[in-house]
Amino acid sequence: MFSRTIRRPALVARHNAISFPQSTTIAGSQKIHTEAKLTEMGLKLPSPGVPKGNFAMAVKSGKMIYLSGHLPTDANGQLLTGKVGAEVSPEEAQGAAKLIALNLLSSLKKEVGDLDRVKRIVKLVGFVNCVDGFSQQPMVVNGASDFFVQVFGDKGVHARSAVGTNALPLNIPVEIEAIVEVED
Amino acid sequence: MFSRTIRRPALVARHNAISFPQSTTIAGSQKIHTEAKLTEMGLKLPSPGVPKGNFAMAVKSGKMIYLSGHLPTDANGQLLTGKVGAEVSPEEAQGAAKLIALNLLSSLKKEVGDLDRVKRIVKLVGFVNCVDGFSQQPMVVNGASDFFVQVFGDKGVHARSAVGTNALPLNIPVEIEAIVEVED
Amino acid sequence: MFSRTIRRPALVARHNAISFPQSTTIAGSQKIHTEAKLTEMGLKLPSPGVPKGNFAMAVKSGKMIYLSGHLPTDANGQLLTGKVGAEVSPEEAQGAAKLIALNLLSSLKKEVGDLDRVKRIVKLVGFVNCVDGFSQQPMVVNGASDFFVQVFGDKGVHARSAVGTNALPLNIPVEIEAIVEVED
Repeated sequence: MFSRTIRRPALVARHNAISFPQSTTIAGSQKIHTEAKLTEMGLKLPSPGVPKGNFAMAVKSGKMIYLSGHLPTDANGQLLTGKVGAEVSPEEAQGAAKLIALNLLSSLKKEVGDLDRVKRIVKLVGFVNCVDGFSQQPMVVNGASDFFVQVFGDKGVHARSAVGTNALPLNIPVEIEAIVEVED
Repeated sequence: MFSRTIRRPALVARHNAISFPQSTTIAGSQKIHTEAKLTEMGLKLPSPGVPKGNFAMAVKSGKMIYLSGHLPTDANGQLLTGKVGAEVSPEEAQGAAKLIALNLLSSLKKEVGDLDRVKRIVKLVGFVNCVDGFSQQPMVVNGASDFFVQVFGDKGVHARSAVGTNALPLNIPVEIEAIVEVED
Repeated sequence: MFSRTIRRPALVARHNAISFPQSTTIAGSQKIHTEAKLTEMGLKLPSPGVPKGNFAMAVKSGKMIYLSGHLPTDANGQLLTGKVGAEVSPEEAQGAAKLIALNLLSSLKKEVGDLDRVKRIVKLVGFVNCVDGFSQQPMVVNGASDFFVQVFGDKGVHARSAVGTNALPLNIPVEIEAIVEVED
């Protein structure tokens, strides 16, 4: 679904976790477990996002990676926009949250080099741009939560806040930030 | 006020911090200082909340416990709802913030086993579901801040953000998340 | 521009980074690098803010300083108020974000004693009190982000979330919280 290239194509099984190239050792195949899982799910990491200002998409402090609030861009780099409960349905916003999660992983990989170094997805905060009275923020942010658990299993189970807001940058429907613990 | 059972009833003085059972050693009574304090305040820990999605109410990373955004449920497990400045008064919302703080402690105890391991309530973020123009978010979130300082003394003094929002999950008036440092 | 006194006047070059008093050693001049930089920029640290409730403006946990959501007060201690997109322009709100950043530094100095101990501005969250449909939160929060990078260089580059909200305490236009890593 995502058309952009992945940085270590030689180590990535594109369609099946079993189809590793012969040169991949057992250690090597463990190293690409996370990205192989994404491939299994029919997903590719998008290109890392570029900060729209004097900041970084990710900052490492000790074992913790602090990820900036990320935006929903789709496989073609198109930004999804609109307010939930008005022009965007909860289901569409949930899909946007999943896209954000994939973008978070892309920034995370750029910062730590290898997604298999993830020890725990520690915390998400999801901001949902919604009409007054909308109360299904958890269902929207589940798009990201379900994704992280699917990709990382128990390591993907995180603490979380899901809240509403009357306005978000560029009129996106959802913005999600994350804290991730990685191996030293 | 809270009717649900506490996990270690033999170690908890139900009505008075002085009425410890005979079998409680000095070390034992220190261990239950925090819950004895709650009893003194006429409070009991509610049952830990259950996440409404693929996440956890609390995640431990190193010495830090990240607590998810918690909801205001009362002693009977009833969820408080409504927008502050409309159907909910600031005073009622302050009471809801205190209930959330008690729910945060319940999740914290489930995660760390003993509330006396709390080294510092480090940080709260309180989101107040309010009408446009409402500006007393600090007074609302004080319901939680005052509670933590009352229970933990200096260890309960935390950094904090209190902000408004146009909408929260299930139309609750307040949502509060926390970061807590515990002893190793 | 800021008229309030700084705590270590003997070590602070008031109008020019070169005009250190004779008694300042090389080590001494390194120690005041950050505040000398502020002086170069024509700025002085305001008096530290006072929490409006049972909390602290900053809490230290390990190497991390958690800074509470701070308010925009100007050089005269006046609080800036108003909603962005209504009575406050995006440019004015950007200026308010810069004032908040300076207030964050003041609280940080009070907590750690010396701003040269800053190892990294790790994370900001900026909440912008705005009308529905306002979508330039990043431009507003850049007022703080640009400031931190100007003062700290690479150490000032942080992860960040910028979001909208329908209401903030005391009707301020922006509230910003921060996490800062300091040297032990």
